[in-house]
Amino acid sequence: MQHLNYDQQENWDFITGTHQSPIALNHQKAIADDNLSTIALDYDPTVTYVRDTGASIEFGLTGHATLNHRKFTVQQAHLHTPSEHVIDGVQATAELHFVHLAADGQMAVVAVPVMLGNTNAAFHTIFDNIGTQRALPIALSDLLPEERTYLHYLGSLTTPPLTENVEWYVLDHAIQIGQAELDKFHQYYRGNNRKLQPDNDRPIEYFN
Amino acid sequence: MQHLNYDQQENWDFITGTHQSPIALNHQKAIADDNLSTIALDYDPTVTYVRDTGASIEFGLTGHATLNHRKFTVQQAHLHTPSEHVIDGVQATAELHFVHLAADGQMAVVAVPVMLGNTNAAFHTIFDNIGTQRALPIALSDLLPEERTYLHYLGSLTTPPLTENVEWYVLDHAIQIGQAELDKFHQYYRGNNRKLQPDNDRPIEYFN
Repeated sequence: MQHLNYDQQENWDFITGTHQSPIALNHQKAIADDNLSTIALDYDPTVTYVRDTGASIEFGLTGHATLNHRKFTVQQAHLHTPSEHVIDGVQATAELHFVHLAADGQMAVVAVPVMLGNTNAAFHTIFDNIGTQRALPIALSDLLPEERTYLHYLGSLTTPPLTENVEWYVLDHAIQIGQAELDKFHQYYRGNNRKLQPDNDRPIEYFN
Repeated sequence: MQHLNYDQQENWDFITGTHQSPIALNHQKAIADDNLSTIALDYDPTVTYVRDTGASIEFGLTGHATLNHRKFTVQQAHLHTPSEHVIDGVQATAELHFVHLAADGQMAVVAVPVMLGNTNAAFHTIFDNIGTQRALPIALSDLLPEERTYLHYLGSLTTPPLTENVEWYVLDHAIQIGQAELDKFHQYYRGNNRKLQPDNDRPIEYFN
């Protein structure tokens, strides 16, 4: 038996980059897992700032989420267009990411597909106030679907530093964005979606 | 505002290696977190195999654990001597790692400090049967302390591939190993402890 060389630890192989996001998701390949929990979101109905990060338009949120039985604090949300995840072969008009942090540093993203449709007052307010630090009241129902079944897997941030150890909760049900709001966003970003990454046979779970 | 170049994604910086294990832990710097849960272990009192992995002597276990409110399956346990984690400046004689996997691929390790002391019948049985595939009955109370307060942080495997996204639950209370069992282990491994890694200001949590 060849033993690992503990005297030359600096030469050990460090394997990484195998759990990146986004990936193509498929319900037929997903495993139903009743041990997962319903997504409970307790966000405040106020946007705390809106800024251009260089990768998207980001808006601040406060409040909490319960994801897979644990408490997270919501940090911010931002939009990618077109969508980053592809679900059952469908690429949505856009994808809204709600980024969360737990007390132990665990990151989790709730991703919501966005389809071109009716005017969305929340997006209108947000994209009309880029650069503001003023509190903006919004209706959370504009940004979150009522039905919250989801696909779940372990991945990464989709912008540098592409940090792994990110829990993804990708909702099945979409919200809408109006043509005017999409046009406004496209003045800033169009095609700010990272390419699909290899899934490397990661387990994909489904909760409904 | 300089925008991220989505046309040259292959040039994006990928930062990794910042969440490695083991680290030095200190109760005074740990944050108590009542949102964590009691460690509930439901292992079967049987070792399913014992083998020399090249990094330690590993023994198979079956059963489940509830860690931070979620269900994990126990895979195996193995020993490092001396200990890998240093708690409040103390390096134990050895450290026993119980490795767990969740359905979504999340890994979690329960680490138990081991101090030189009384004879330990479970270690005696295990180290006397290296290479066996036979089921070996053991008393789990030999391998786990009754009190299970713990320190919790996010780290990595401590042997190649040094994969990150590993949840650590490092128990405060030690179990004992007899000199004869330790001598037997030292015939195979002595100093199979990875060097301390930078904590990079990761949150360390405490549950009691």
